[in-house]
Amino acid sequence: MVTRHYEETPHHGLTDDAYIEILVALDAEPERLAPLLESLHPADIADLIERLPREHREAVITSTPPEHLSEVISHLEDGVKEHVVQFLNPEQVATALTELESDDAADLAQMIEDMSEDEDADAEDFLTDPQQKHLLEFEEDTAGALMQQEVLAALPTDTVTQFLEYMRANGDSLSANPGSIFVVNRQRRLLGTISMGRIVKAPLKAKLEDVMRRDPLTVLPEAPTDQVVRIFEKYDIHNLAVVNKRNQLLGRVTIDDVLDTVMDDHAYRQSAAAGVDSDEDLFAPVLTTARTRLPWLIINLFTAIAAASVISLFEDSIAKLTTLAVLMPIIASSGGNATTQTQTVIIRGLATGHITKQNAWALFRKEFASGNLNGIIIAILLAIGVLVIFGNPMLSGVILMATVANHAIAAFGGWITPLVLKRFNYDPAISTGVITTTFTDVGGFFVFLGLATLLLL
Amino acid sequence: MVTRHYEETPHHGLTDDAYIEILVALDAEPERLAPLLESLHPADIADLIERLPREHREAVITSTPPEHLSEVISHLEDGVKEHVVQFLNPEQVATALTELESDDAADLAQMIEDMSEDEDADAEDFLTDPQQKHLLEFEEDTAGALMQQEVLAALPTDTVTQFLEYMRANGDSLSANPGSIFVVNRQRRLLGTISMGRIVKAPLKAKLEDVMRRDPLTVLPEAPTDQVVRIFEKYDIHNLAVVNKRNQLLGRVTIDDVLDTVMDDHAYRQSAAAGVDSDEDLFAPVLTTARTRLPWLIINLFTAIAAASVISLFEDSIAKLTTLAVLMPIIASSGGNATTQTQTVIIRGLATGHITKQNAWALFRKEFASGNLNGIIIAILLAIGVLVIFGNPMLSGVILMATVANHAIAAFGGWITPLVLKRFNYDPAISTGVITTTFTDVGGFFVFLGLATLLLL
Repeated sequence: MVTRHYEETPHHGLTDDAYIEILVALDAEPERLAPLLESLHPADIADLIERLPREHREAVITSTPPEHLSEVISHLEDGVKEHVVQFLNPEQVATALTELESDDAADLAQMIEDMSEDEDADAEDFLTDPQQKHLLEFEEDTAGALMQQEVLAALPTDTVTQFLEYMRANGDSLSANPGSIFVVNRQRRLLGTISMGRIVKAPLKAKLEDVMRRDPLTVLPEAPTDQVVRIFEKYDIHNLAVVNKRNQLLGRVTIDDVLDTVMDDHAYRQSAAAGVDSDEDLFAPVLTTARTRLPWLIINLFTAIAAASVISLFEDSIAKLTTLAVLMPIIASSGGNATTQTQTVIIRGLATGHITKQNAWALFRKEFASGNLNGIIIAILLAIGVLVIFGNPMLSGVILMATVANHAIAAFGGWITPLVLKRFNYDPAISTGVITTTFTDVGGFFVFLGLATLLLL
Repeated sequence: MVTRHYEETPHHGLTDDAYIEILVALDAEPERLAPLLESLHPADIADLIERLPREHREAVITSTPPEHLSEVISHLEDGVKEHVVQFLNPEQVATALTELESDDAADLAQMIEDMSEDEDADAEDFLTDPQQKHLLEFEEDTAGALMQQEVLAALPTDTVTQFLEYMRANGDSLSANPGSIFVVNRQRRLLGTISMGRIVKAPLKAKLEDVMRRDPLTVLPEAPTDQVVRIFEKYDIHNLAVVNKRNQLLGRVTIDDVLDTVMDDHAYRQSAAAGVDSDEDLFAPVLTTARTRLPWLIINLFTAIAAASVISLFEDSIAKLTTLAVLMPIIASSGGNATTQTQTVIIRGLATGHITKQNAWALFRKEFASGNLNGIIIAILLAIGVLVIFGNPMLSGVILMATVANHAIAAFGGWITPLVLKRFNYDPAISTGVITTTFTDVGGFFVFLGLATLLLL
């Protein structure tokens, strides 16, 4: 007889056929749902729930095989998780909290606290493990919040053989992805790390201290996640030790959590830049969606009103020459596009850490020069167009000058705005656009209508 | 005597002090450069080069310790890599090509071919290893282009002991990050995978076929990178086998390459949406920068001209009531912001695969309802403002109706545009914005000025 040492759920992905079969079962044959879900990987069940309109989710979560429930929950996006957790009974939540890895359990407990209408609800009460309670102390978007406490630690004087025997004896109780071995002294101070790839290649009699990578990379729990991500990207590591100020090992950040974080962060920044909640469930209720999006629309309304006020200064000029009203949006739009180009480069340079105090000025000179060069080209094209269509050389000259000036404003605004936001610890990826287009709208209208009033009327 | 089995370069990061010391050395004491670079990790030297204006880069690359040169090159962004490779002599390039991992070597060879002014230059000629030449066949942005050929393969009948002995005997010649073990038959067909964490825990006498994960995840080399990324994110794996149609193992994709790809892809999409080259060196020459950015500015000029043409239809109305010109940008801007919100949600839903044929319509109903709800609120605010400031109830009514209508256009445009782009295999993250704001500009001006002409004049 062949002994299998491991067996897992297959992961074939949520194929279109499986998806449609489930939709049919949801509509017509609810009793077929449970067997269909059994053949899916937990990550695919999570995927399915995220795609489904809200009214179908309860049926799916209650038909999910109990042994997969906590893993399904860990794979859900926050907005959907909040919705689905409501369908679980307290025992199911308690089971999930004990089965999840420490970082996922702490996140779930925090979410339940936030959702609870009971003001006395406290995430700590949901967790039984005192170690996990400790994870609640770390602020969001820090290494501490990202780390898990499941680590494989060993003493420097252990031999490779001793370590391997320990692994074989305790394998079942260890994390499925043990990652690196952290070599610590009796005070739990971190001395070095050994990757699984290295321990497998090491001489059996060697001591861990002679095999380990000394002087390992570490972060403090309060390090921002951006910094953690950059360390993983830069040094191509798979595990990063989190230590306190006395260099004692607190936990580790794993590369799969970093990958998830990078994707979430990116979604967050894009959504926040448009005033949308990135955790928002695709099928959130209409009122919730509208309410979260309204504030950003109102802020932007004020910037449009600022631009309108500039135009109102020149109403007399527009009355005399209505062509000005026709050309206004072209000036504003070309400036807005140019400033978007410069700010995109600056925001990215700040994110990669390539822009420093020492090179910011050299970068301005380059951006200003290339922005103005394109400004002049666009201005000439517009001036020729205006001359041909309206036959008015002075108007053509005014649009030429205004376009050149607005591209200069665009380059300056696109450069300075993200730098200033970053300086004051605002995320430039989120708020730059609103500010820079206000510059180019207000500036563009003012220069164009002002020059027209001076020179044409 | 203590025997150390491994030793590596420390990675302390490029601290501000080290950075400034290097800047000083570059300016005044070039002979101090080499010793300063010796204390840096190759990834930090790459980081330094990316930050430096172009005139300083040659000094740094020529002072880089030769044993780190190829790793420094592998860490550079493409735009900077192209610039720096010019300072290397042919022997240095040849050495780098043999030292790099297969995927990095193939990329570098391709870059040298692309840069060469000699039309007969062929990337194949730069590579000595026939296996590496094979990597050049795969198209960009596919699993094949992302994979490396360094894999650890073993037979199903090998025992854990045999495998571990093989590793210890051949450790030095194996990749620093061996990743998973791929279990293949004599025809190199993939039977299963074993992670390092699992092999370490496995009983020594077990056969690999009884330890391996059967039915492993695989991709074909032509699978798009987006799909590869989603598999890694979803199933939390660290290695993914790339196989041909006969299930023969070709190579593997590693999670660190996936992390780099995700970050590059984000940068690419954000840059492309603004008509900027994401590989662009921060300090690219002004002419290069201006030339790559101009086409997008010109495309956008045409959309602004479309909006201007609509306004020109109503010049008579504007001449009679110049307040219309003042209010125009407010209508266009509020519609543009609303459409940005809807499209952000749709683009993200498409990227995560949560939007399907089956739920797209339900999503439209929800987006249309919440978009119109906010449209009505914004419209009422604007109508009250116009009534108070201009004391014109009819004008107030016109702006109310036009704003409501433009938010409806915004919700529809923000929903349909990314879906249609995706349907025709364009990347919605790149081109949606240009199209949707044209909708809301043209639509907004037309409805507002049209209603004003009908009702007010």
